[in-house]
Amino acid sequence: MTGSFEVRAVGVVRSQFTDPRHTPVQAALNADDEAVIEVDALYRDALGGLSGFSHVWLLCWLGRDGDESERPPLKQVPFLLRSRAREFGIFATRGPRRVNPVGLSLVRLLSVDETTVHFAGVDLVDGTPVLDIKPYVTRFDAPLGDVRCGWFDDVELVDGSTPEGLSGQAG
Amino acid sequence: MTGSFEVRAVGVVRSQFTDPRHTPVQAALNADDEAVIEVDALYRDALGGLSGFSHVWLLCWLGRDGDESERPPLKQVPFLLRSRAREFGIFATRGPRRVNPVGLSLVRLLSVDETTVHFAGVDLVDGTPVLDIKPYVTRFDAPLGDVRCGWFDDVELVDGSTPEGLSGQAG
Repeated sequence: MTGSFEVRAVGVVRSQFTDPRHTPVQAALNADDEAVIEVDALYRDALGGLSGFSHVWLLCWLGRDGDESERPPLKQVPFLLRSRAREFGIFATRGPRRVNPVGLSLVRLLSVDETTVHFAGVDLVDGTPVLDIKPYVTRFDAPLGDVRCGWFDDVELVDGSTPEGLSGQAG
Repeated sequence: MTGSFEVRAVGVVRSQFTDPRHTPVQAALNADDEAVIEVDALYRDALGGLSGFSHVWLLCWLGRDGDESERPPLKQVPFLLRSRAREFGIFATRGPRRVNPVGLSLVRLLSVDETTVHFAGVDLVDGTPVLDIKPYVTRFDAPLGDVRCGWFDDVELVDGSTPEGLSGQAG
């Protein structure tokens, strides 16, 4: 289980956000805001057919420069629980500080224009490397049966929540 | 946009499947089958709180040994369209041969027992490296509004479909 693998950016996010602390913590909590992915021209052909989908998954690299060797704590207080200071294992959170800091964002596809992908629902800082774009497929991506969302079921999710805003609630 | 990054396995899948050609192409098409993730003991604490969730996302490394330098074709005929030989860009498919061969599987969580995660819904070969486990959160992961799933909307999705089985339909 010691395998390691190399991933590469296929594009980059251009958004209005420059500071992670002031960036909404989830795309769904900033659903109407718009941004683009500038896909590397190398991968232009890989976008063929994407515009038939209403929603896509973005897999993005959330590691910050210089902290790649840093090991994140395995238990963390999620941004959304800062006011209660409750810790959970990082595999039970959606936070960005993970063993492999790859984020998963569901966004609404607006248009595909040459190598520019316009989307709505922004939780990504300007300059974020995009590793993959995958179409949302209801049959694969919507759970069947009862859904329990762990600690999220006890949290009020407020539109526009940012790490800075949520930390302001602490105390 | 030439950045590259290193990811590492946090665990490994143990399933009944040994050959990708005979492995169901999506977890949802093999929803009742069960398998486990053996999480590296290093990351035991990262599982805290996971058992409160009914469904989780698995991000897995789907690259095969020896083909890491190989560039996948940017347009491919999806397994599910082999009988029609229609090509799409890989960002409009869920196939495993991608620029970054990271798979996204939604599975049903059965239990977490020390460092063993039992799940149902298997589209992964035995030995597949697991890069991340993320909880499914309805508020983040279910699209709002109308959903269009591109070419998938025109395809019949049959339980148990495998690459080999789908290629048998060609002609």
